[in-house]
Amino acid sequence: MSTPNWVGAPANSETDIGTRIFKLAARLFPVCRSITGSGVRETLGVLGQHIDITRHEIPTGTQVFDWVVPSEWNICDAYVKDGSGRKIISLAESNLHIVSYSNPIHRIMPLSELKAHIHTLPDQPDLIPYRTSYYSEQWGLCMSHNAFLALADGDYEVLIDAEKADGHLTYGEYLHEGATDKEVLLSAHICHPSLANDNCSGLALLTLLAVAMRSRKTHYSYRFLFAPGTIGALTWLARNEDRVERIKHGLIVSCVGDGGGPTYKRSRQGNAIIDRAMESVLCSGGRQAIMQDFSPYGYDERQYCSPGFNLPVGLFQRSGFGTFPEYHTSADNMTFITPENLALSFRMITEVIDILETNWTPVNLFPKGEPQLGRRGLYASLGGDKSTGQTSMAFLWVLNLADGTHSLLDISLRSRLPYPDIFHAAQLLQAEGLLRSGSYANAKH
Amino acid sequence: MSTPNWVGAPANSETDIGTRIFKLAARLFPVCRSITGSGVRETLGVLGQHIDITRHEIPTGTQVFDWVVPSEWNICDAYVKDGSGRKIISLAESNLHIVSYSNPIHRIMPLSELKAHIHTLPDQPDLIPYRTSYYSEQWGLCMSHNAFLALADGDYEVLIDAEKADGHLTYGEYLHEGATDKEVLLSAHICHPSLANDNCSGLALLTLLAVAMRSRKTHYSYRFLFAPGTIGALTWLARNEDRVERIKHGLIVSCVGDGGGPTYKRSRQGNAIIDRAMESVLCSGGRQAIMQDFSPYGYDERQYCSPGFNLPVGLFQRSGFGTFPEYHTSADNMTFITPENLALSFRMITEVIDILETNWTPVNLFPKGEPQLGRRGLYASLGGDKSTGQTSMAFLWVLNLADGTHSLLDISLRSRLPYPDIFHAAQLLQAEGLLRSGSYANAKH
Amino acid sequence: MSTPNWVGAPANSETDIGTRIFKLAARLFPVCRSITGSGVRETLGVLGQHIDITRHEIPTGTQVFDWVVPSEWNICDAYVKDGSGRKIISLAESNLHIVSYSNPIHRIMPLSELKAHIHTLPDQPDLIPYRTSYYSEQWGLCMSHNAFLALADGDYEVLIDAEKADGHLTYGEYLHEGATDKEVLLSAHICHPSLANDNCSGLALLTLLAVAMRSRKTHYSYRFLFAPGTIGALTWLARNEDRVERIKHGLIVSCVGDGGGPTYKRSRQGNAIIDRAMESVLCSGGRQAIMQDFSPYGYDERQYCSPGFNLPVGLFQRSGFGTFPEYHTSADNMTFITPENLALSFRMITEVIDILETNWTPVNLFPKGEPQLGRRGLYASLGGDKSTGQTSMAFLWVLNLADGTHSLLDISLRSRLPYPDIFHAAQLLQAEGLLRSGSYANAKH
Repeated sequence: MSTPNWVGAPANSETDIGTRIFKLAARLFPVCRSITGSGVRETLGVLGQHIDITRHEIPTGTQVFDWVVPSEWNICDAYVKDGSGRKIISLAESNLHIVSYSNPIHRIMPLSELKAHIHTLPDQPDLIPYRTSYYSEQWGLCMSHNAFLALADGDYEVLIDAEKADGHLTYGEYLHEGATDKEVLLSAHICHPSLANDNCSGLALLTLLAVAMRSRKTHYSYRFLFAPGTIGALTWLARNEDRVERIKHGLIVSCVGDGGGPTYKRSRQGNAIIDRAMESVLCSGGRQAIMQDFSPYGYDERQYCSPGFNLPVGLFQRSGFGTFPEYHTSADNMTFITPENLALSFRMITEVIDILETNWTPVNLFPKGEPQLGRRGLYASLGGDKSTGQTSMAFLWVLNLADGTHSLLDISLRSRLPYPDIFHAAQLLQAEGLLRSGSYANAKH
Repeated sequence: MSTPNWVGAPANSETDIGTRIFKLAARLFPVCRSITGSGVRETLGVLGQHIDITRHEIPTGTQVFDWVVPSEWNICDAYVKDGSGRKIISLAESNLHIVSYSNPIHRIMPLSELKAHIHTLPDQPDLIPYRTSYYSEQWGLCMSHNAFLALADGDYEVLIDAEKADGHLTYGEYLHEGATDKEVLLSAHICHPSLANDNCSGLALLTLLAVAMRSRKTHYSYRFLFAPGTIGALTWLARNEDRVERIKHGLIVSCVGDGGGPTYKRSRQGNAIIDRAMESVLCSGGRQAIMQDFSPYGYDERQYCSPGFNLPVGLFQRSGFGTFPEYHTSADNMTFITPENLALSFRMITEVIDILETNWTPVNLFPKGEPQLGRRGLYASLGGDKSTGQTSMAFLWVLNLADGTHSLLDISLRSRLPYPDIFHAAQLLQAEGLLRSGSYANAKH
Repeated sequence: MSTPNWVGAPANSETDIGTRIFKLAARLFPVCRSITGSGVRETLGVLGQHIDITRHEIPTGTQVFDWVVPSEWNICDAYVKDGSGRKIISLAESNLHIVSYSNPIHRIMPLSELKAHIHTLPDQPDLIPYRTSYYSEQWGLCMSHNAFLALADGDYEVLIDAEKADGHLTYGEYLHEGATDKEVLLSAHICHPSLANDNCSGLALLTLLAVAMRSRKTHYSYRFLFAPGTIGALTWLARNEDRVERIKHGLIVSCVGDGGGPTYKRSRQGNAIIDRAMESVLCSGGRQAIMQDFSPYGYDERQYCSPGFNLPVGLFQRSGFGTFPEYHTSADNMTFITPENLALSFRMITEVIDILETNWTPVNLFPKGEPQLGRRGLYASLGGDKSTGQTSMAFLWVLNLADGTHSLLDISLRSRLPYPDIFHAAQLLQAEGLLRSGSYANAKH
């Protein structure tokens, strides 16, 4: 291993990075995305102003494992007008009003018929729900339950000026090339419309992470993937089936702008390096996180962790999907996410990348007893205090476990000390000639 | 594996089965049982009205491992009369009044001498305790502490018209023959007198379970054993030593009529299929049970789990022995158990049998990514809801873990979903061509 | 294995042993110890009145792994006088007043200069802290914060009449010879001045334990080591490097006179026999202890558990170092420790030694079913009680686990019954011909 040329998140620019992620998320927020169509392309266009995204267009009808690439869906306008001509629902007002991938319709119908196509949240009567109908033929609308209750009898004009037709499924990729072709997959779904946390936050964070990595030389290559949920991940897997073994670590990133969690769902493997690195970042040095074992419901980790692939891909979120009241409602808007929370999420992912890039296995060259740290200026000169500081503890842990079977990540997990503390202690001990630079711990990956 | 011809407990007849078990227990309750003698035979006679029990009579003096079959004990009458001739204790009133297997006596004695032979429960002064003296020569009586305190000075006539003589130890067996001679052992002790939960409930439940199984074709043969505690189990083991390896799973059943627990004590093996099946039944789908590791005190699992046999036999109870105040007292009567509780216990055991009979290891034929469930009508058509239903989760769990190393029981335990949900999901997925019917998971047993 | 000639702590003499340890600790308390010098020799002289200690003198400058034996430090007098000639600090009053291993000085200086060399405890303003400066050249004083705040402006005469010069590092050893040259290491640090719990208590306890063992024949040889912290352990390891593999079990003993804990920190191995024996002694039969995994900060287990040695050496304490407010202050005096607490600590260590000496692996000669204990007088004759006694449980556990794979220590840990109960049950069962005396369980160690 050669010492990497970068270690540690850019702490002094955290506010800045948070603000930049937030602003990018704000630009993405109004776009009416679905699993196919112009909304996806428009989103990739915005991201492409920051990084050089490769866009892939897969024709409708293409077989993708057990699935078929669906029709392309585009929507021009949608509204519901009451008898007086007043728009009570309007795409222009909120693209959540229309069930995503809804069939088109333009008809006048009585309230009774209209009601059967309207979805509301009776328990959250002020919020518009987010609903989809990707793989069945229906049309539908969403509105707040209060507005729904206020609908008067009479006829309504319903317009959903949408088209489902042969076209393409679109996804984007950006590859940060490292010294090897071993890859770290970082993926965010691009199919949700105006939901800020889920997943404008993930799209924006990963894009600006890719920007931040441009100036960095890395061991791994980093593949950033922006694709529609489920069908996008399946399409990417189908088209990259023979290269999939290059992926040594991976994260699905979503809901990273709120103040909850952090939440990490382990890969199906359960004890992969990415799982252990996440535990070190999220659970050491007093941090507390919600750590979940893999389950087959969630985001695209479902596909990467299917038994035929079983890739080491976990899911990183702040609040877990489905656990916060704003989830999949109009309350998941730009007031729900903040630059500070985005910056912290960015930092956590950066810390995980630091571990992937820098982990090595030290060998203590003075394994019999402790070497004398005080003589080398690595230990407090005055004794008798109740406890030793975290810095000294990092030295002691590294030396004690540097028997060639523990990587720095192992030592961080065992000691519950932050990886950066362990890493810096090991660097200093190595510089003092107390450690031999052992193998690159992730080398086999 | 061929799909079994029965799966699932008879939910719609639950009240009925509970009532029938209760009535049978009520018929058993008054009988004065001990480890040998006419009480055991009378009990087997009652059970024999339901199933075709094979009765075994083992002569007194037969060597049974380290033990010897004891004398046969029969009691005709017993009472204590005070000076006025009033019966203050009477076998007719409660057979708990006489220490089980007590020596005979007929003498007039002063209160001071009588007292040394009377057992009471000072902390439960209204209850008569249940006491035994199987392997030592003594006579004794039991009464409520309050009645004991009220005894006046004076002489008392004590009669225990019992006989210990050469005879036989009696036990009964019923075999439900399955497709193989691999056996499931279901055993209830038959030696306790008028105690409803311990163990009229177990005797009655197993008998009616045997009845219910008559119409069912099974993979395993089911051996129902009704034998006196300890010496009965030892005798059965000694006489079946060369066939003991046929027993692949087993349950001791007692105290199954009260509303506590459920309680399951694992076999000495600790992780046998019966232990895992019990965990699935008792701890999935929100059920909560008291799960105990094996310990060498309890019922006849002590003998089956002795190191020379180490059979996969656990103990199923509702309230655990010794943990409920009615235990081994006159309060363990027919008011302490209910048809509802008996029906639930019956259902739980039936669910375990379902697992033993039907468990198999699925192999996902579409292991790369998820197969498209929606197209097959196995998934909700409208997306966006906070959570997926239990049915969908069962599909997802089965598909994700169907890599040939997880049986349906494994998947139930891992997902914490009820085994029936997992089983039905697997059947539907198999019918859709998504799963290959893998090996019969319990085949090697 | 032959039955050892002693088992069980001397319960009837506990008050006596506690008093004797306390008195010896009281004799050690006033001595001004440091890592080298006359204080260590004086302490070994006191201990040498009880056991025949071998004293080792290692010259200053001797290389010890990465360390060098430091100069010998001796102090004759020390005080600070105020302008009126009153001694506000005095070695005679408390040897905690002088930073241990302080450089000499004799000067008059203003308060401002003096203050920079004074250490206090603002949060415990009545107590004098204990501070050391072993490996850096400085002088310092310690006093209560209240006295510090009361210091008037003006000039002070500061005298530390100490000498650092070529000399020796001193440590003492006592070997109790057993039947084999396999060793149990019992070590207490000898470098702390007037601190009663840390570690007059450990020095005194181990000395009187050595006395108590003189009359006992043992399997192991017991090495008692009284050496200064860190440099003493390192020196011993360096001089015994080729014999270190003889050490099969070991304990560092400190802070054994207060009423806290008990606290046991496991060896780096984590599951060594000493770790398991300690768990049996401290956590069975209702005892509750603080069990800690190894960490590389603490006492001399740091050296014995360094990766180049990785010996099975744990740390036994009552209150853990750094966790009690008296730690490293003048409040750790003879009023903080009691004969009763010392006696209990003595008993616990003795119980661990009992396990090391007597552990064996029983084989049940009647493994099919339970043997009939009642016939042999090993079981209650009256049945029906809610629970069986601890004695019966010990019989049942031993018989059930006596399959040749469980030692008595294993059985104690599994059953949570005290090892002595398990041991005595096994002895009785063996005497009854129910067990075969299996292998000596610690034989390979």
